[in-house]
Amino acid sequence: MHATATFTDIYVAVSQFYGRQVQLLDSNRFEEYAQTFTADGEFQHTPGVPPARTHTGIIEELRRFNTRFDDDPVQRRHMFSMLNLSRREDGAFDATFYALVLTTRPGGKQPVVGPSCLVHDVLVIEDGEVRNRSRRVTHDHMFNL
Amino acid sequence: MHATATFTDIYVAVSQFYGRQVQLLDSNRFEEYAQTFTADGEFQHTPGVPPARTHTGIIEELRRFNTRFDDDPVQRRHMFSMLNLSRREDGAFDATFYALVLTTRPGGKQPVVGPSCLVHDVLVIEDGEVRNRSRRVTHDHMFNL
Amino acid sequence: MHATATFTDIYVAVSQFYGRQVQLLDSNRFEEYAQTFTADGEFQHTPGVPPARTHTGIIEELRRFNTRFDDDPVQRRHMFSMLNLSRREDGAFDATFYALVLTTRPGGKQPVVGPSCLVHDVLVIEDGEVRNRSRRVTHDHMFNL
Repeated sequence: MHATATFTDIYVAVSQFYGRQVQLLDSNRFEEYAQTFTADGEFQHTPGVPPARTHTGIIEELRRFNTRFDDDPVQRRHMFSMLNLSRREDGAFDATFYALVLTTRPGGKQPVVGPSCLVHDVLVIEDGEVRNRSRRVTHDHMFNL
Repeated sequence: MHATATFTDIYVAVSQFYGRQVQLLDSNRFEEYAQTFTADGEFQHTPGVPPARTHTGIIEELRRFNTRFDDDPVQRRHMFSMLNLSRREDGAFDATFYALVLTTRPGGKQPVVGPSCLVHDVLVIEDGEVRNRSRRVTHDHMFNL
Repeated sequence: MHATATFTDIYVAVSQFYGRQVQLLDSNRFEEYAQTFTADGEFQHTPGVPPARTHTGIIEELRRFNTRFDDDPVQRRHMFSMLNLSRREDGAFDATFYALVLTTRPGGKQPVVGPSCLVHDVLVIEDGEVRNRSRRVTHDHMFNL
């Protein structure tokens, strides 16, 4: 995969990238999730909180965030959809898509649904692999009237 | 993009088209949403209501429909999934897929989920761009016993 | 479509395959759904229940499972997402993805959401068509603490 590949090839590579990336996140494999970012990648998933930076910073932020589940075992799922991908002038890609979080607890067949989010990624192709240069998540319930 | 492109190229172009189209709809950019239809395009999203026709007609229908949210600010999201695409004998494409509507209100982390819908689109490739010739939406809760 | 096709072509063929397969399942077209498996295909969708085998076995299992809806008419939808596809050493493909079940009853605009599932498929390309050699579904609410 190169940045000069066809749009079709890149759209599919990005779809596959997200499939793998999200399954790493939802399996709490934070080290591998962090590796899906560039070395200086930025990850901002909580509005108002400054972005985490570098692989080490992203791992620490995910560990901090997930302490809320230490006494509340859950299986979370992030469902990404409606990918809108476009090439930037700097050769990277803008990816905008929806993310819906589902949280299932043991014995509860119906997951808690939400929040619903809008995600803005900047993606690059590095050593033939798709990687996040940045991710910024906004939450649908935090809009101003 | 031409109608003679490979199935792979067209499937991806349609996926990208839907990503952009839905984000226009959910941002209330109705003029741009209407432009994703052909000039004589048909849009029917409420069972029993005749389809809106032409860009002007589609914009008017979306404005009318959305007056229900005038005093009830919401962020809606349409999640399309399970796209089944096939080439028609007339050179257009039949696209059948699921659409799930999520409605988030300020401060409410859990969106209202539903309705769940089945959508039948007829798509054409016009000036190299995917466009809707028609869209017909059926709602899952309106089936007959 | 051959097993030697490009990753892009196969990823799209699998996406299209799932779109069609799921719509067959949710339309109760169990004979056609069974045909999306190889002749000796295995289908296991209920944890703890041994897999159904062969087209006949899969049809019987789906009929048995769906008797629960004999007096409770529903429209079910399976939403697959986050497809992670990889080539196996034996030339087949591992496909891992999320599946969310939505169940709508007449007159009820909000579907019952759940269960949320993780699906492991082994897919082959047979006579140019994608087919399931096996499917194994795990339910998110059945995890051990």
